[in-house]
Amino acid sequence: MATLVVLGSGIMATALATPFTDNGNEVRLVGTHLDRDIIESIKNTGVHPNLNLKVPDGVTAFQLEEAAEAFDGVELVMSGVNSFGVDWAGEQLAGLLRPGMHVLALAKGMQADADGNLTILPRALMNQVPKELRDQLSISAIAGPSIAGEVAIRRHTSVVFTGENQEVLDMWRGLYETDFYHVWTSTDFVGVEVCAATKNCYAFGAGFMHGQLTAMAETNPQYVNYNYGAALFGQASVEMTQFMDLLGGEPSTVLGLPGIGDCFVTSMGGRNVKVGTLVGTGMTFTQAKAQMPGVTLEGAAAIQVIGDAFERLTERGVLKQAQFPLLRHLHDVVAKDGAVDVPWKTFFGGNGSGQG
Amino acid sequence: MATLVVLGSGIMATALATPFTDNGNEVRLVGTHLDRDIIESIKNTGVHPNLNLKVPDGVTAFQLEEAAEAFDGVELVMSGVNSFGVDWAGEQLAGLLRPGMHVLALAKGMQADADGNLTILPRALMNQVPKELRDQLSISAIAGPSIAGEVAIRRHTSVVFTGENQEVLDMWRGLYETDFYHVWTSTDFVGVEVCAATKNCYAFGAGFMHGQLTAMAETNPQYVNYNYGAALFGQASVEMTQFMDLLGGEPSTVLGLPGIGDCFVTSMGGRNVKVGTLVGTGMTFTQAKAQMPGVTLEGAAAIQVIGDAFERLTERGVLKQAQFPLLRHLHDVVAKDGAVDVPWKTFFGGNGSGQG
Repeated sequence: MATLVVLGSGIMATALATPFTDNGNEVRLVGTHLDRDIIESIKNTGVHPNLNLKVPDGVTAFQLEEAAEAFDGVELVMSGVNSFGVDWAGEQLAGLLRPGMHVLALAKGMQADADGNLTILPRALMNQVPKELRDQLSISAIAGPSIAGEVAIRRHTSVVFTGENQEVLDMWRGLYETDFYHVWTSTDFVGVEVCAATKNCYAFGAGFMHGQLTAMAETNPQYVNYNYGAALFGQASVEMTQFMDLLGGEPSTVLGLPGIGDCFVTSMGGRNVKVGTLVGTGMTFTQAKAQMPGVTLEGAAAIQVIGDAFERLTERGVLKQAQFPLLRHLHDVVAKDGAVDVPWKTFFGGNGSGQG
Repeated sequence: MATLVVLGSGIMATALATPFTDNGNEVRLVGTHLDRDIIESIKNTGVHPNLNLKVPDGVTAFQLEEAAEAFDGVELVMSGVNSFGVDWAGEQLAGLLRPGMHVLALAKGMQADADGNLTILPRALMNQVPKELRDQLSISAIAGPSIAGEVAIRRHTSVVFTGENQEVLDMWRGLYETDFYHVWTSTDFVGVEVCAATKNCYAFGAGFMHGQLTAMAETNPQYVNYNYGAALFGQASVEMTQFMDLLGGEPSTVLGLPGIGDCFVTSMGGRNVKVGTLVGTGMTFTQAKAQMPGVTLEGAAAIQVIGDAFERLTERGVLKQAQFPLLRHLHDVVAKDGAVDVPWKTFFGGNGSGQG
């Protein structure tokens, strides 16, 4: 039996306790300062209020001030915070980790330095941990298409565990794999994490399909604007591949679960799509965001970070202006309150230059 | 001004008259023996009854017995029949084509010989034309995500024109490209057409996602079974790439419009998804088909042809049994009335072998 300590008790971190405990393991769930009510609810009733489900037997909840107790004697750690909490989580972990521990990260997104150099979030997380300690830990991540609620109720889910060390990935897979939770592994850490981050960006764009249809006041249900959406989705798959060139991932990682599969499920609904839909109807991003108070918009945040970095990289000559036309348009919408006006003719390498 | 003669007056063949005539060109639409009522309606009222729209100015309708008149003096020909009519259309064209003509084909699917060797449909079409004449014609095709009705009403649509001759493709593009109908070209004829055929197969599988949810009698709208669907979609993208190895297309063709983009739009709805959904609820394919009398199921037909061919190719040692696990499962469902039981662990190269 293994014991995992999880920092952050959001819905995905908690949902993943289902396959882990189904295998006879135990989870210690430590809330952040934002999770006090969640932890209180689990302690009192066993129910995670946002998942709206009882947590499995084998899960114990801890408030943040009980973190040291929760970390006592365990070797397996999950960072379950979202992309906005990665630096904070890294700082916390710097005081809680010990040599030999294995860390599994969930947050999806990227960070950039002043020159526009982009970093995947598991690396950003570990950058908060002193190098000497960091070198004695392993860092891996979970990616691929999974809606948390469906994992929690044991719906078939296929994911990718990624990191640099195959043995560590095999260890994690052994702990999580069940009859419904299907796990593959990939040592293309950068490629998988870049797909995971950018799919949130492109899902925001997928919302345009619905929003533009609303803006046209189309009343015939036969006209669904899917031709529009399919071209965005196709261009997303091409740009994901170009990210591999830029950041050093494997082009084949875009196929299958990490890129195409995750982009599909993320484009089918959720917060990113919702705010993109509002923008598609004709609102500015600022107006659309105001319609969703208190909602964390990881896709829009990733567009801001990556698009800002692309401006630096273009100034430096690392990127050409003609590259990533969809991501740049999304950035114009999010960072500059630009109107949705998809630059179709620039897609797929530009008109007349052939496919792909 | 150019004049195009179209054999077959189905919804896609007719919808494509919109961008073509928007550019000042004319269309002569020739119905097949199955299209008599459509042609009669267009002649009398200008309305295509299945599109439920008036055809554009510049379209003239002809019954099949008027075909020779329609073909008189034109150099541009479209074969607009569906996959079930390809051989018939080729036989008709053999008597109507003249040296120097350019042919554009719409039907998506594959044909196989007794050894399991697969042929794309534009080639099958032209195989009905005597070789001496065939060598004096060009053959191209239109592929990529486009719902006919949306093309007809000028919704943004991005497609790929494919064939072996770049100059011919550029000519066709010049005739069709408008502000809403965006055209790219690809000389990867086999790759584009294989994507176009197989996306219909995988869209049938996408229906399982909905059908299985119905079978579970899930009442909470929060549980949408998209994790299930995303894994199918991801495996589809991997198998499409393996088709490129098998049949000689470019792996990069799977990205962008011809593969991923078209698979997305086709998986979002339509007949293939509907019959797949019925099978997902627990019906046999035979039972599901009986629920949809008179409906042509091109995806199921393609699964039958390709799956049968895979059995021959496996016997011959060209394919390994472990290749194409999703397509083979779809074949088991369609050809043998097998129950839906997705072989998850065999996806993505098999469990433990890493991603992709």
